[in-house]
Amino acid sequence: MRLPHGVLLSGASLAVGVALGARLTSWKQPKDDTGPKILQPLIVEASSSISLPPSSSIARFGLPGLSQLKTRQSHVLSYDPRLRGPAWVLEQLNGERLQGSANRQDSEFTEDDSVHPYHRATNSDYRGSGFDRGHLAAAANHRWSQKAMDETFILSNVYPQNPNLNQYAWNNLEKSCRGLSKRNKNVYVCTGPLFLPKKEADGKMYVKYQVIGENHVAVPTHFFKVVVLEKHSGEIELQPYVMPNCPVDEKTPLERFLVPIESIERASGLLFVPNILKSASNVRAITAGGK
Amino acid sequence: MRLPHGVLLSGASLAVGVALGARLTSWKQPKDDTGPKILQPLIVEASSSISLPPSSSIARFGLPGLSQLKTRQSHVLSYDPRLRGPAWVLEQLNGERLQGSANRQDSEFTEDDSVHPYHRATNSDYRGSGFDRGHLAAAANHRWSQKAMDETFILSNVYPQNPNLNQYAWNNLEKSCRGLSKRNKNVYVCTGPLFLPKKEADGKMYVKYQVIGENHVAVPTHFFKVVVLEKHSGEIELQPYVMPNCPVDEKTPLERFLVPIESIERASGLLFVPNILKSASNVRAITAGGK
Repeated sequence: MRLPHGVLLSGASLAVGVALGARLTSWKQPKDDTGPKILQPLIVEASSSISLPPSSSIARFGLPGLSQLKTRQSHVLSYDPRLRGPAWVLEQLNGERLQGSANRQDSEFTEDDSVHPYHRATNSDYRGSGFDRGHLAAAANHRWSQKAMDETFILSNVYPQNPNLNQYAWNNLEKSCRGLSKRNKNVYVCTGPLFLPKKEADGKMYVKYQVIGENHVAVPTHFFKVVVLEKHSGEIELQPYVMPNCPVDEKTPLERFLVPIESIERASGLLFVPNILKSASNVRAITAGGK
Repeated sequence: MRLPHGVLLSGASLAVGVALGARLTSWKQPKDDTGPKILQPLIVEASSSISLPPSSSIARFGLPGLSQLKTRQSHVLSYDPRLRGPAWVLEQLNGERLQGSANRQDSEFTEDDSVHPYHRATNSDYRGSGFDRGHLAAAANHRWSQKAMDETFILSNVYPQNPNLNQYAWNNLEKSCRGLSKRNKNVYVCTGPLFLPKKEADGKMYVKYQVIGENHVAVPTHFFKVVVLEKHSGEIELQPYVMPNCPVDEKTPLERFLVPIESIERASGLLFVPNILKSASNVRAITAGGK
């Protein structure tokens, strides 16, 4: 039995499929950074080896999805193809890198060609949506290189963000991170979306979020920013922030958005503290908040 | 400035952190299969090498999240820690493996100890929720080994499922897969959750789903099952199904739940066709549908 015509795969989608198969089954970090580097590319390789002959292996036709890490001059991100945006974006800030002549007027929002068209956000998804294209790695953190700044405009570093939030309170948080990078040895900033549940009238908890455009780009209910300060003393300090994706009074002190790191770890499905404890043998204190 | 006491990390969470750090920064497939094997374990390794000294690297404190592949005797799955369940579960069925004396009365639903407690579903999350613990890799597909069957009861292979769906229409679909495995050279079944958007009264599209229990286990709006048939002729056939997570009349013919593979690929963020085209040099036809 055959299904109606519309169900058959078209030649066009088969062709797209061929081009992308390799990336998923034997995944290798694409080397798309050709300019001069301050950040070295992060090399992450995943290889599969299966002892049984291919015809009897469970992975005969590959695995349908694995982490999609993207290494850019200014940031590293893990792309969530279901959400059409990143699960997290990691940047390293320092005083030197904040300087430079890169100009955001010379940058344009662009699609991420390394993402399959089925799972890619486009500029037209945002048009008329009422949302800004909100950077996760902030453009102004990367004035040191026009290419580094340009890469923050790739739409895999972007989510639909309330314009008021984007222009005021969130912008203040980004500025605060730049200030911290002048007073500390190293500042690492990890930014991502949250989709937080709410109790409804029936007493049950629901996650509800809008999706925009033909590609159904997810609109996060909140954003998190986890700032890891490595001080000159060797002490590590964490500043975990959450802001709702709605208008926020810009006069609200930033400390009001600090949350326990555990709440971000639980809600995002990510872990920060284990990695810090493993990597920093000289941890003297981990505190949330504070100068 | 310090935050109120509750924000400071407790000693207990630090200890948990230490134990789990290694898994995320230098990720290696845990060797948790100790019994006799028909499926060989799939070896997937991810290694990071960074040229800059650790103190100046963007990955100084690791990466907050990467794919969490779990290899079990009966299935391979990719765990989505934010959803507290799998992104996809892959099984291989064949006539031989359907036989055996394994008994589901001897299996018990268990937590997945390899998942961080923050991101793990527990039996108590399901209690009183009104949902069944719905298998993604079906228990009855793995009668060949009690351990293989037991592993389908690990809660990382489970989502909250409407009891009527679980017991009738979904069960029929699982039976159909077993039937197909008797008439084909190989049958691969990939099962997963969907969270599909709906247009609301304001004309906008929203994804809305319930979460249950203290751990906020996501309740999928739909489930997909992609059946890949490798026929004795060498022809490959795809049968892509979607069922809503609500009561479904069990007399509805299964063909009514067939959808274009593209709709599952778009909605799930996964890709099937590219891998099939890459892996099967002898593809003669890819069709959706069939008996």
